Order: sequence, then structure tokens, then C-alpha cells
Amino acid sequence: MIKMAKSLMVRDLTADQIITGFFLVREKEVRNTASGKPYLRMELGDSSGTVEARMWDQFEAAAKDVGRDDFVKVQARVEIYRNKPQLSLQQFRLAKPDEINLADFLPHTTYDVEQLFKALLADAEGMKNPWLKKLVLKVLGQPQIAARYKRAPAAKVMHHAYIGGLLEHVASLCGLAKQIAAHYPELDLDLLLTAAMLHDVGKLDELCYERSVSYTTEGQLLGHIVMELETVSRAMEEIAGFPANLKTVVQHILISHHGEYEFGSPKLPMIREALVFHYLDDLDSKLGAVRAALASDSGEPEWSAYSGALGRKFLRLEEFLKDKTGSGKPPNN
Amino acid sequence: MIKMAKSLMVRDLTADQIITGFFLVREKEVRNTASGKPYLRMELGDSSGTVEARMWDQFEAAAKDVGRDDFVKVQARVEIYRNKPQLSLQQFRLAKPDEINLADFLPHTTYDVEQLFKALLADAEGMKNPWLKKLVLKVLGQPQIAARYKRAPAAKVMHHAYIGGLLEHVASLCGLAKQIAAHYPELDLDLLLTAAMLHDVGKLDELCYERSVSYTTEGQLLGHIVMELETVSRAMEEIAGFPANLKTVVQHILISHHGEYEFGSPKLPMIREALVFHYLDDLDSKLGAVRAALASDSGEPEWSAYSGALGRKFLRLEEFLKDKTGSGKPPNN
Amino acid sequence: MIKMAKSLMVRDLTADQIITGFFLVREKEVRNTASGKPYLRMELGDSSGTVEARMWDQFEAAAKDVGRDDFVKVQARVEIYRNKPQLSLQQFRLAKPDEINLADFLPHTTYDVEQLFKALLADAEGMKNPWLKKLVLKVLGQPQIAARYKRAPAAKVMHHAYIGGLLEHVASLCGLAKQIAAHYPELDLDLLLTAAMLHDVGKLDELCYERSVSYTTEGQLLGHIVMELETVSRAMEEIAGFPANLKTVVQHILISHHGEYEFGSPKLPMIREALVFHYLDDLDSKLGAVRAALASDSGEPEWSAYSGALGRKFLRLEEFLKDKTGSGKPPNN
Amino acid sequence: MIKMAKSLMVRDLTADQIITGFFLVREKEVRNTASGKPYLRMELGDSSGTVEARMWDQFEAAAKDVGRDDFVKVQARVEIYRNKPQLSLQQFRLAKPDEINLADFLPHTTYDVEQLFKALLADAEGMKNPWLKKLVLKVLGQPQIAARYKRAPAAKVMHHAYIGGLLEHVASLCGLAKQIAAHYPELDLDLLLTAAMLHDVGKLDELCYERSVSYTTEGQLLGHIVMELETVSRAMEEIAGFPANLKTVVQHILISHHGEYEFGSPKLPMIREALVFHYLDDLDSKLGAVRAALASDSGEPEWSAYSGALGRKFLRLEEFLKDKTGSGKPPNN
Amino acid sequence: MIKMAKSLMVRDLTADQIITGFFLVREKEVRNTASGKPYLRMELGDSSGTVEARMWDQFEAAAKDVGRDDFVKVQARVEIYRNKPQLSLQQFRLAKPDEINLADFLPHTTYDVEQLFKALLADAEGMKNPWLKKLVLKVLGQPQIAARYKRAPAAKVMHHAYIGGLLEHVASLCGLAKQIAAHYPELDLDLLLTAAMLHDVGKLDELCYERSVSYTTEGQLLGHIVMELETVSRAMEEIAGFPANLKTVVQHILISHHGEYEFGSPKLPMIREALVFHYLDDLDSKLGAVRAALASDSGEPEWSAYSGALGRKFLRLEEFLKDKTGSGKPPNN
Amino acid sequence: MIKMAKSLMVRDLTADQIITGFFLVREKEVRNTASGKPYLRMELGDSSGTVEARMWDQFEAAAKDVGRDDFVKVQARVEIYRNKPQLSLQQFRLAKPDEINLADFLPHTTYDVEQLFKALLADAEGMKNPWLKKLVLKVLGQPQIAARYKRAPAAKVMHHAYIGGLLEHVASLCGLAKQIAAHYPELDLDLLLTAAMLHDVGKLDELCYERSVSYTTEGQLLGHIVMELETVSRAMEEIAGFPANLKTVVQHILISHHGEYEFGSPKLPMIREALVFHYLDDLDSKLGAVRAALASDSGEPEWSAYSGALGRKFLRLEEFLKDKTGSGKPPNN
Repeated sequence: MIKMAKSLMVRDLTADQIITGFFLVREKEVRNTASGKPYLRMELGDSSGTVEARMWDQFEAAAKDVGRDDFVKVQARVEIYRNKPQLSLQQFRLAKPDEINLADFLPHTTYDVEQLFKALLADAEGMKNPWLKKLVLKVLGQPQIAARYKRAPAAKVMHHAYIGGLLEHVASLCGLAKQIAAHYPELDLDLLLTAAMLHDVGKLDELCYERSVSYTTEGQLLGHIVMELETVSRAMEEIAGFPANLKTVVQHILISHHGEYEFGSPKLPMIREALVFHYLDDLDSKLGAVRAALASDSGEPEWSAYSGALGRKFLRLEEFLKDKTGSGKPPNN
Repeated sequence: MIKMAKSLMVRDLTADQIITGFFLVREKEVRNTASGKPYLRMELGDSSGTVEARMWDQFEAAAKDVGRDDFVKVQARVEIYRNKPQLSLQQFRLAKPDEINLADFLPHTTYDVEQLFKALLADAEGMKNPWLKKLVLKVLGQPQIAARYKRAPAAKVMHHAYIGGLLEHVASLCGLAKQIAAHYPELDLDLLLTAAMLHDVGKLDELCYERSVSYTTEGQLLGHIVMELETVSRAMEEIAGFPANLKTVVQHILISHHGEYEFGSPKLPMIREALVFHYLDDLDSKLGAVRAALASDSGEPEWSAYSGALGRKFLRLEEFLKDKTGSGKPPNN
Repeated sequence: MIKMAKSLMVRDLTADQIITGFFLVREKEVRNTASGKPYLRMELGDSSGTVEARMWDQFEAAAKDVGRDDFVKVQARVEIYRNKPQLSLQQFRLAKPDEINLADFLPHTTYDVEQLFKALLADAEGMKNPWLKKLVLKVLGQPQIAARYKRAPAAKVMHHAYIGGLLEHVASLCGLAKQIAAHYPELDLDLLLTAAMLHDVGKLDELCYERSVSYTTEGQLLGHIVMELETVSRAMEEIAGFPANLKTVVQHILISHHGEYEFGSPKLPMIREALVFHYLDDLDSKLGAVRAALASDSGEPEWSAYSGALGRKFLRLEEFLKDKTGSGKPPNN
Repeated sequence: MIKMAKSLMVRDLTADQIITGFFLVREKEVRNTASGKPYLRMELGDSSGTVEARMWDQFEAAAKDVGRDDFVKVQARVEIYRNKPQLSLQQFRLAKPDEINLADFLPHTTYDVEQLFKALLADAEGMKNPWLKKLVLKVLGQPQIAARYKRAPAAKVMHHAYIGGLLEHVASLCGLAKQIAAHYPELDLDLLLTAAMLHDVGKLDELCYERSVSYTTEGQLLGHIVMELETVSRAMEEIAGFPANLKTVVQHILISHHGEYEFGSPKLPMIREALVFHYLDDLDSKLGAVRAALASDSGEPEWSAYSGALGRKFLRLEEFLKDKTGSGKPPNN
Repeated sequence: MIKMAKSLMVRDLTADQIITGFFLVREKEVRNTASGKPYLRMELGDSSGTVEARMWDQFEAAAKDVGRDDFVKVQARVEIYRNKPQLSLQQFRLAKPDEINLADFLPHTTYDVEQLFKALLADAEGMKNPWLKKLVLKVLGQPQIAARYKRAPAAKVMHHAYIGGLLEHVASLCGLAKQIAAHYPELDLDLLLTAAMLHDVGKLDELCYERSVSYTTEGQLLGHIVMELETVSRAMEEIAGFPANLKTVVQHILISHHGEYEFGSPKLPMIREALVFHYLDDLDSKLGAVRAALASDSGEPEWSAYSGALGRKFLRLEEFLKDKTGSGKPPNN
Repeated sequence: MIKMAKSLMVRDLTADQIITGFFLVREKEVRNTASGKPYLRMELGDSSGTVEARMWDQFEAAAKDVGRDDFVKVQARVEIYRNKPQLSLQQFRLAKPDEINLADFLPHTTYDVEQLFKALLADAEGMKNPWLKKLVLKVLGQPQIAARYKRAPAAKVMHHAYIGGLLEHVASLCGLAKQIAAHYPELDLDLLLTAAMLHDVGKLDELCYERSVSYTTEGQLLGHIVMELETVSRAMEEIAGFPANLKTVVQHILISHHGEYEFGSPKLPMIREALVFHYLDDLDSKLGAVRAALASDSGEPEWSAYSGALGRKFLRLEEFLKDKTGSGKPPNN
């Protein structure tokens, strides 16, 4: 059953509305005014953003049952405080499971994940190396993997940090792999595609991403490289006759794909395709981070917000080039 | 006038030949045998390699006129010493300028540089941004630049370190740029192409590459980034009406293309295209270095020689996968 | 026309005064009290410091026209809040341009910039190398450069971060250069003076310093080293017959003056005078930073405030040596 | 069948003997004298050292069949050249397999490996945690592992770089673990013992150590951490009911035992026992390296040879303290 | 006279009590409510924790005499604010010196320092090297050292950061030293014990720890390594006949005990015992830091708080292993 | 008694002389010719350079008594081998002590050390701070210090690595200190002079420099910073009433003068004069290294030899500026 999208999103709140809607509780606390009177303060969110909410009276009963990461149904008046909407709650209660569509509450890719996944399988089917083809189809074909593969973000904050972000990133890498292999005939396309499809499979379990994105305990202790190494190695063992050295090659590409020891790769890329794949992965991730930085408001019209992932801010090129100072009429060529 | 290729190359020397041929003197010294008798030792080379040469008697007159980086005509017997050919000189003299075709004496690209350069100009002609198109054509159109552009190596030792290597590297980057811009529609192809064509123009004068590849004094004091900055900035100033901010963008892409301070970029890439171009340049250079490492003999069948540029050696993938140990019959898909 | 200095400065505010004066708006926002009543909060400043201001009633009309970086005329009562003065505004309005003397609103050097600049020109006139002398006088003689040279700070926060700070720093460097060249006869004084006078010319446009000190977009993309390289190179080209190698030397000294790649120098100093100038520039900058740290209150009597530029705090030597514990009568020598 | 130890070792060669014996060929080449006459030069070795050997005449037939890493039987005269013995070969031939006892040709531990291994099994039997006990006994009990465990060196050059060195290192770690767990009651001894016994199991296949110690291709591509992760993980999977979280803990301790990313650990130790085990492993390895440095002659009586593994040389404490300069009669306490 | 322990500790405050007790003032300020009414806010503490306190009326007279680091006697009502106790002050005054037992106000070791110190002296008495024994007893026997030795913390925040922490750390190191010397017979136990007892003597004066732990000015300028070097060197000089080279050895062990230049050791350990002692000191310090991190509440049941000293958080092993998911019945061995 | 300077120096050897002279044996070995005949090879030196020497016959008797670091009297013929002089020995014997003047055999400063030292004492006498003046005069006045102060080199290889180099370096620093203190009135000249005179006193015993420059064992274990700390601290203690805090200041300046932890300073400079002195010391040392690099032949006319101390080579400025390419007539100013 596909649930209806939420009708009311945070980004659409406007002053002086009286609204009824569903939100995820991101923070909740009871504060006192300076005169000592307690009031309820919550941070409510959905996939489109976050809004402050306050309730000044008779909140105790409702508040008792509600905690962080719960979903609530609220009735409130929208006020503007320091140029931002804020909710003055009139009443609220825990939402019922069937009132909620999880997808409404976490940001997600704008692509159609089913279609992306189908394209991935098609790329896998097109491989020429029978062993690698069998390996990739075997891994992607496991139902509990396929389902999570379509939901997982690619990271907690660095890049593609939204539902479906991992699949979007992998799909982009497959496209890049095909182009690069066409450009450099010395490269083995099947190895690059295998790397693209399997290099982040460990993230399915390194991260948890039900109501917010965070790390699992296992994920913190092992990391996705070690986790996917186990998944993929087991799959190779289960394929009768899988060549031993090809297994070593696949393992090497997985463990070296971060490119440097300090980023958690226990080996540097020592196979041509491993080196190239590291570049492609790094490039696509960094471009994702640039995109995120440019999408958020920095207060400076010509600059993106500062990106922690990149250690810098980025120029808004179009803004900067708009300024025609000192520019003449374009030359006739 | 196109000179004939040298008929006798170092790589073709075989035992017990008596040969007559032309070589570049790479080293020359007079040594003594343990019994105190002096003899002449030279290292002679051409684009295919290097060979030791010795002359035991009556070498003084001929040796007097000859020094490092001179061309000589020699008559000699080929002997095998420690499994390598060595020349036992019978006589030699300075070669005359019209006996020598410089191209025979430095390793060079296997591509046709005239064709590569034509393709480059065609890419430039195809640009949509009138200012960038004018800029690139203006720089490449300067005769003293075009001529050197077809000869320059891309580096002294790191990658594409042979005559025509720079152009080969640039041509590869233009191809990559077109693919990447097709893959990421947010990217400005014309900026990437401009970067590809101009980012190493400073190398035309940072390096000297007449008889061997080395750095000019100016090259050591300024480096190619600063040198091409001046060349390209002057060209932009000479184009009436060139937009001031576009000039800044082009300058930024040039100075940031090494990507990190420690590699001599005084600014980190802060424009999306600058970041992407840095990745493409780095990838193509590194793959050039891998290619060179794999091409040289390491004594280990499964491994390339150690590459100083990459700080590691690379697996010979085909060799390694040849070993069928533990591999069964490929699956029927 | 020289404007009168502001009669009322932030540093002079005392409790319970009713004041009328002019200030720069550094921040402005409307907040709510806990009981929901909105009030205006501004941060007002001049060259002597910053003060909080609040207005509790009827601020809307006046507040509408006023924003960050505007100048305002205010009437207020000075109150003491947490040991610091605070303004309780009675009324305020935008100041008129002719009521404002910009110099009152940014901290500035305590030296007479006209006199410093004259001394600089005198040093330039005293050079023996005719080419360097011509170069320096040409650059400093450009009216738009001279005017900015007398205003520019040497940095945004690191050292000499106040109006006229750049000139003060350069003047100090010229003095140092003369001493060092006297001490080490092997050094060329004219090169050191040229370096001192031109090494930060790019900062005139890297920074903007009208109402507060910040970076221009061009400054962030190129940096002052690249910017002054263009200015100075063009000047050298415009001097007929300027020796090509001397030009390279001047360019090298400019680009290497930060001394290390990680500080944005694309080349390390490889000329004796370049190395020495780097030391002098670094020393004078660091001493400026120490001076600033010692001038600000740290709460610890024996220690300066922590200096981010230096990564440490500094001992107040006089305070520390005041303590006579364990010290006897000075010896008779 | 236990072979007899070699009767003649390199370390026992003395001048002017005529000897007959067996050696491993470490290097072999044909050189020419200055007068052009070829001679055979070999480096011959056994577990006690290395010796140069030359043959001046009629070596061609014998030399043809012999290469690096072959064993030879030689007859020669011992001469002293530059204060070292050198062999002047009279004749030599390939040794037959049954003439050779491999153990004579690689340096090995001075401990009895069978006894060390028995003690290891006893420690394993003494564990209280039933799962860890079962795991360790299962791994050590695999015949192909046990056999190699008794032979493997702990490293190629860094520490315990001799046959049996790995077992010696592990035995020392088990002893340390017991002491440390007694000292810090908060520590789980069974986890420390498990770490000690399994942390280098991957080295059994990372290194090859038949005739000299070197890395396997698989070892270079994966490293022992990844290799043993697979071995140990498979063993845990094969133990029915092995607790999932305990498996994660064991995996974490294995992958973090190098302690830092730059030494190839993809995760830092985040479990108390993982941190402690890293310290013990590092300490025992470093002490092994110190021992090796002190054992080799440096030419300086008070100093060890320089240790590349430690980046320094070490003081010979006893030598240094022998010097009684300035020391009086010991005090009566 | 031994004072009674404080009867009321911060950790024991519960809602709605009216309490009377003694506390240390850690912070004090006068704030205004949004309506402009001033109130007093203090942070009060003892060895068990910290609590916020507010006084809304008539606080001026009492507040005038009281400042940071003073002790106060307060009467208050305990309220709960944001889930934490808070004091609503009714009255307070400066405490009198004889009402206060300093030990109640700083956290301290749970061991009996007198007993620890006695054990230390016993270890010293047991040394075999007469010079080292005399040295250690001489230093520890100085009354002003012994008294401070029993009070000093081992650090300001990193590890053992409480009264008596230094002695606890040293006692642990002596125990470790005895075990390690038993394990590695090549080690000189007396040198290790000397190192343990003297390596942090400089901290007695580097830190001040009367009412809170901080650095002395001398401590910041010299550091404990340099400070103890002077103390210990003077003691060695005062022992007639102390061997000169043994003095150098002791000095080397002291100055190298941080193990790396970047941690303030001017020399790397170049004596076997110096290297080993560095490991032991580092291990015991790190375990102290782990213990502190695990002892503080992180909000995550399976993880400790983040430890700045270690740059990571630590797993609560018992919590994690409690989870029986996937674990079967323990095997019968 | 002042000995006569050596009459024959290495730098003066010319072809075909028959010479008699005194040299220091830097290396000695017996080699074999390819035909197996042994000959003696020595490297002989004096303060002006090094020369190879060979003896082909009847060298055994003489060679037996002679070793490295001995002085020999030789009779030989000067031959030219590979463009360098070489000695063909006819006879040689150990030199007698009274035939040798040590000063002839190590390179030394070109300044008059007695005069430099007198100037140092005069600077000390001129100090205004009575305590620092007394301290410096006390240290320099110790006879065993004064004598070594006039001989010691400033380093083994980095800079001023010749007899008297330390004093030359200190004298230069005193001159710099006076200039800098005149330039920055905030600086205390007496502290800078004290730093200059005492900062390398530890090198008198860190290095040994009788026949060649090397490190003492104590020097390697402690380093000159720790060694001079002891010397200077003891002198301060012996001055009755020396102020305790001034002592701390002097100690801080000594231990922080290397400026960075990684160069062996256990504390960063946190006193203004300590920071400035670090800069002066570093500048004078680096310029010494530049001078040494420029003085040695690199084979490239425009470049110095590569300086390991500086990690680069330096431009020969005069050579480079000689080239008039592109330079016009100097402008009339």
C-alpha cells in the first residue's frame, strides 16, 4: 500500500495559519520562563525542514507520552519569530502508525529508486565476465539487501545524506565507469562496475536510517569496508569455482577504495582499476557535497555555505558571472 | 624537410655486430684500470634506450672534442657484458648537424602530434562561450606556442615524460572533459576545456627538452602555474571587453589546478569546475604514471616496477588472473 | 575637508548618562521577551569598541530603515548590565553621510600615515638599482594605489588588523631591511626594500575595509600573492628595457614570501634575499600579533589573551618579574 | 625423519681452509675483470650469515644450471679479503633435495617451537569464556595452520624476523596478557588471549618463508589483517550459536590492533581490551626490534646499529655504565 | 585535626528539600530577567558535582562579599529544572575557614594515599642499585615533596585528574614495572622504578590544586619535565660519588618519557628501559582516561562519553555483550 | 707556543709534484686489484680538503701502525685521476705529536676568535640588568668554558660547521640582537644578549671536535638544550639573590629557542624575547647554511649545491643577473 504524501510540510508554513498536521519530534524539553513558569519546547520536523514549537499551558498530560523520534499529530497556530515560522501549540498527541508514511519525514532522493535499481540490474546483466556478473547479481538479488539498498543514504552528513542517496550515488558511478572505460581502453569495465555496485554495500548496516541517519554500534566498531568485505567474500565462496585470484582482486578493490590509510583503507590501491575507482568514488562524493553546500543558504549571495566535508565554501558561479563590470560586447567569432 | 629516422637504434643492438651509428652522449669520463691504464667510458643513448661504451686505446684525440649532450657518430663492436649489450668503440667523431634528427634521440609519444593539435583546435572552435573560445584560440594560435606545444613533455619524470607527452595528456583531458560534462549537466564544458588546454602552457618554458628533459632556471624560480598565469592573463587583457569576473574565474582555475597547497597551488579549488578539473588532471597523470611503471621491467612477473610518482608498485592484473588455481568452469548465466 | 573626530566614543560610556551620538550598526534583530513581547536588540560600535543596545517600545518605524553596516544617530540612557555598559534607546535614526567620518568607526594605526608614506617614498628614492627604484616608484605613484595603501589593514584578524596597519607594517619592514642589510653585507638592500614595499600590494584589493574588514570575492579566489603578481608584473613590462632576469627575481620574491607551500606560496624561497625577506615579514607580523594579544584583557594578570594567530598566549613579562619572591639585592658589579 | 644439522656454517669459516659444504645462492652474476675476462660472482648463505664467492675459470657449465634461491654443494678455498672471508670456488653443483635441511638456511628462534605451541594450547584450554575457547582451539587446531604457525616469522625485517619468530612473539604476548589482566582487574583476560593468539594468523599466508622471507602477492594486496579477518570470521560462523555481538568484538580487536590508520588499521581501538592489546603487541614488537639492533655490530661500542623499524639507535647500557668516571664508592644504605 | 566529611553533597540533592550546606563558588554573576529585574546566578560545587543556584531578591548584600573560589554556607530550596536539581537560595554567607575541609571540594582518589605512599617507600627500599635507591629515597624524603606528592593530581583533565591521582598513577606504574621486568629479564627493574617514582615529580609544582586544578605560571613556562629535571639533577649532585654516566641515564629517561617530540620530550627514548617506561606510562594514563570516559554519562547506553584525551569514545563492553541476539547455548567444552 | 701553519695544504696540490707533508687519515683500507694483488687505499685530509692516496707495494709495515684519525707524514707523487689530484705514496709514517698543529686539520672560521670573544665580553659588560650581566660573565668566565667556546663548531653539518663556528654565530647574533632591540623598543636587549651568549653553551659538550666533528654519547642522550639548562641553572643558583622569576624566564628562553616541539624544544616560546630570539637564531643559522651551499660547487653555474639543511638549492644571484637578455639601458632617474 502506498501512503499518501503528507499534505502539510514544514517548508509551506505561513504566518497566522491554524494548522493540523504530522511531525517527527526531534527535540523535546520543558523550560521555565524567567518568571519561573514552565512551558514545553519542541523541535518538530519532516523531510522538508524543522520548526520550533511551544506550548504555554496544560501541556503536561500530552507531553508525558511523547519523546524524541516519536511522531505527533499537532494542532497549532503559525507565528513568525525572528523572521522564521514558529508553532504555538494548541493540542497534540502521539500519531498512530497507520497515519504515518516514513518517507515524509526524512529527506530523500529526487530520483525514482525503483527505476535506478532496475537500471543497476540491467548493467549487471550486461557484464561479460561471468564470475563478476554472477557475484553482483547474487549480492543485489538477496531480498534483504535489495530493500535496504533502495533506502540507504550514502553517508550521515558528508554527501548524498538522504534516503535513496546511496543508490543515486551508485547509479552515477556506474555511468561514470562506462564513460571512463570507453576513454581508457586499458581498463576493465566489469571490475569498475563491480566496484561501483558493491563498494558501499556495508553501509546498509553501518548506518541506521529509520527516523534519522546515524551509525549502528556494529557500524562504528567495524565500518562499512570491513562489513561489506564479509558479505561479498561469503558470496564469492558460495559461487562454486570462483577463481581464487579474482576473489583477491575484488577484495583488494573493496578494501582500498578510500584511497588512503587515514580514510580507513588498510591497503592503498595497487591495481589500476582500484586506483581509478577510488578517483571516481571520490569525485562523485565531493560533487555531492558541493551540491549540498550550494543548496544551503549562506547569507552571502556569491558563496555557498561552508562545507565541512570539503573544508571550504564554493563560489556560486552564475551569480559571480552575472556581474558585467568591465565586460564588453561578446566578440564575433 | 623531414629527416629519415635513425636506422640503428639502441634497442636493436645484438651481440657481435659491427655497427656504425649516431648517438647522444649522456655521460663521458676517463677511468683507469686497476693496473693504472686510462680508458674512455661513455653512456650513449637515443630515444629507445641507453648503452655503455668503452674505448681502450687511442681515444684521446677523439674524446677531446666531445662532451655531454653532444651527438657522435661511432663505429663499434657490440659485446654482451652482464647480460646487456655494450659497445667496444673502434672510432668516433662529433656528428654534423645535418646528420642528426633530434626526434631520434628523445622518447616521444606514439600519437601523431599534428593530428592531436588539429583536434584540439577543433574542440576550441566548438566552444559556445565566445570569450573563452577567443582566449583559447588566441593562446594556441601564437606560433611560438603552437610549435613548442607539439614538442613539450608533460613532466620531467612523473608522467608523460616524453616528447609530445604534454599534448597527448591535454588531448586525453579534453576527451575526459566532454564525457564528464555530459554526465554532470551542472558543469560548464567550456570552462573545463579551457582549463585542459591552458593549465600546462607554462610547462612550455618551465622545462627544456632539446636533448634531455630538465628545468629552466626561470622554471625553477616561478613554476609553470605562475608562468602560464602571466601568459594567459596577458591574453585576456588583450581581448577588448573580456569580462573582469570571467578573467578571475579563469585565473582561479589555473592557480588551483594542483588541488592542494603542498603541490604548489596557492589557492584550493573553490569553483565546481576547478575542483572537477583538478580530479581529471590528477587521474590522467596518475594513469600515465601507472602505464610507465607497468611498461618497465621489475624482475617480478606479477608486479610493475616501483613508481616513485605513486609511491607504490602496481599489480600486472592479466598475469595475476592467468593463474587458474582454484577456479572452476565459468558459470552459465 | 577634515571632519571632526566623534565626540562620544564607546569606550567612554559611563553609567546613567543620557547620551546622543553616532554609531555603526554591527548587528540588528527583533527578539521576544519570554512573555512574548517583541523588542529591538542592536550591537552598535565605533573604532573604540562595541556596545549592546535595546529598545523596548515603538521601535518599529525607526528600525525599518536601518540595517547592518548602517550608521545611526541615537539618543539613549547608559545602563550597566553584567558589569558592562548597555544602551537603553530612547530614539534613533539613520545618520546623514556628512555627519559621519568613516575613520571614527574602524580601529586605525596610531601613526601618521601621510608621514609614513612620505618616508616610504624617500626610501624608494634612495635605492641604487635604477630598475628597482623605477619599479617601486611607478607602483606606489599610481594614485588609486597610494590612496588605498594609506588605508588598508595588513590582515583581517591576524596582525596589524586596523586601518593603516599595512603601511605601518611595511614601514617597519623597511627599517628592518636596512638594519639586516647592514649586518649581512652579502645581502642586496634594494631587493629587500622592493620586497617590503610590494609584497602586500595585492592586499589593497584582497581585502575590503570600508566599514569592517573582510575579503573580496576576487581576493578569496586569487589571494594577494597572485593579485600583486599581476600588478607588479604589468608595471615591469611597462618599463622599457627592464631586465628579463631581474623581473623573474622580483616575481620569485613575491610568490615565495609566505615561505611555505601550506601558507600559499607556490615556490619556496630559493634566493638569499627571498629567504631573508620571508623571515623579516614573518617576524614583524608575529610581533604585531603578540602586541595585539598583550593589548587585550585575558582575565589572567600574568598572561595575554590567547592568540589564534600564534596558537598560544604570551607572558606579561613586567608583571611576572614584578614579583620579587626569592630575589635579593642586585649585585654590585 | 630429522635431518642432521649442517656441519659447516658460514660463521665458522676461517682463512686458508679447503672446505666442502652446502649453501643457498642469494645472488649470482657474471662479471668481467677490467681486462675483460669474465668471472662468476655469487653470494652464498645459510642461517648463520652470508659469504662472497668467486670462480675465475671454467665456471660456465656449472653456473648454467644454478640460479637464485637454489641450494649448491661447493668445494672452495677460504681467503680473507678486506677483513672478511671469501670463497674461491674450485667446483660446485646443485644440491639434491635429500642433502638439504631447510632449517639450516634461514635464521630461526632459539626456543623449542613444539613446546611453545603446547603452552599456547594449554593457555587456550584454560580460558573461561566457552565461545572464545572454542574459537581459538578451532583455529589453532586446523592442521595446515598449526604447521605453519610453528614456522612463520613475525615480519620480514621489523621484528622477530626469523623462522618461529611469530610463535615466539605470540607466546610472549600471552605471558604479558596474563600479567596485565592481573594488574588491571577491569580487563577481560580471555579477550586479550584471543587477540594474542589470532592477531597475526594472517601472516601465515601474507609472508612466504621457504628459502627467504618475502611477501606473497595476496599478502601485498590484502595484508594480514584482512586475511586473518576472513579466517577467524569463518571459524566463528562455523561455531553454532556463536553470539553475534561477541563476533563483532573479536573482529574489532583484530582490525584495530595496529592502533592507527596509518599502520593499516581501518578502525581505532574503541574497546578497552583492544586498546590494551595494541599496546602489548607494539611493546613486544619494539622490544624485539631493539634486541635485533643491539645484536648487530655498529662499529660504535656504546651504540647499537641504527634500527630502521625504530628510527634510531639504542644505547648499550652496560657498556656505558661500565665507565666509572666520576663515580665514588657505592653508599652504604 | 581531621575534619568531618561534609554531610550534604551535591550528588545527594533531591527535589523539594530545604537544605543547609557548604559549597565552593565556581561562577557568580548578576543577570537580568527579560523584564529587567536583576537576579543572582551562581554555580556551586563540591567534590561530587556542580549545581546551579539562583536568588531572586535581596541578594546584593550577601553577594558583595563573595567571589569565585570562595566557600559559602547556603540555605536553599531544591527545585528540579530541566530534569536537574537547582537551588533557590534563601540566604547565604561566606564560610569560615574552620567550617571547611578542602578535601570535600575537589574530587579525590578512592585509595588511601598514606598507604600508597608507604608502599612506594617500601619499593624504594627494596632496590638493589645503591645509587638509585639513595636517589629515590632522598627525593621522596624531602618533607615538602612528600606532602605534595600525596595530594597532586596527575593532570588537569587528561587522566587521574583528582586529588591523589598522581600517587595512584605512580603506584600503578610501580606494579607494572615489577611485572614487566619479571617478563623481560633483559630489563633493569631499578631503572624502571626510579622512572616511575620520579617522572612526574615536576607536576607537584607545574599544577596548582588547592580549590581547582590549573597550571602555575612557572609550570606553563617550563613544564614538568624541565622542572623535575632540575629537582632530580640537584639531588644526584648532592649524593657524593653518584656515577656521572648513571646520572646521564636517569636524566635521559626523565626527558624522553613522553616518547615523542610533539608531546614535549626533547629526546626520543634511546635506552631500552626509557622506551619501556614510556609505554607503561602511556598505557596507564590512557587506561585512566578510558576509565574516566566510561564513568561519565554519554546518553548512549552502549558508549562512553567522548574522551578528548583519546580522541574517541569507548564501547561499554558488558552492555554490548548483554544483547543475546543470535547467540546460542554456550558449547560444552 | 704557537705552531707554524702547515706549509702544504690539500687544496694546493698540483700535478706531478713530489711532495712531503702531514695529513689526517680519514679512511684506510686494503683492496685487491682485479688480478688479486692487494694495495693500500687511504683518504687523507686537512682543513682545506680531502685527497685519495694509494700505495701499490710494500705498504704493509707502515700501514700496520696507522689507523683512522691518526696523523701521518707522507712522501708521494701527485697524479691526476678523473680530473682530481691523487697521491701515489712512496713512503709514510705516523706523525709525532709535536709535528702537528690540530688547527691545520679541521676547517675553521676566518675570524679571529680571540677578538670575537673579547667583543662578547664587552657586550656582556655593557648590560644594564645586573643579574643577567653577572650570570653571563660568570658562565663565560669559567676557564674550561672559555677555552672550548673559542673552538666549538655550531653544528656537525647544518651550519657554521667548523672550528670557531659557534663563536662566529654567537657574535653575529649579538649584533642582530642590538639592531632588533633598537628597532622594536618593546624588546629587552639584555634578555636577547643573554639568550645569544648562552643558548648554545651546551654544544661545547654535545659535540666533540678534536679531529672531526661528531656527537658525544652524553650529547646524543641529552642534547645541548638540556645540557646548557643544567650549566646555566647552576650558575643562577650560585648567584646569591638571583630573582626566582628571572631564573624561570632565562630557563624558558633556553628551552624554547628551537621554536617547535619537533626540533627538540619542550616548550614553545611564550615570552616576546623568546620568540624574537628564536627568529634571529634561525635566520643566522639558515644564512650560514646558504653560505655553505653557495660556497660548494654544484656543477650548475646558476645554482648552489643542494643543501640538506634547507631542503633546496639556492640561486647564484649575480650569475643569473649577469645575463642581460632582454634588458635595456638603465633608466635615467
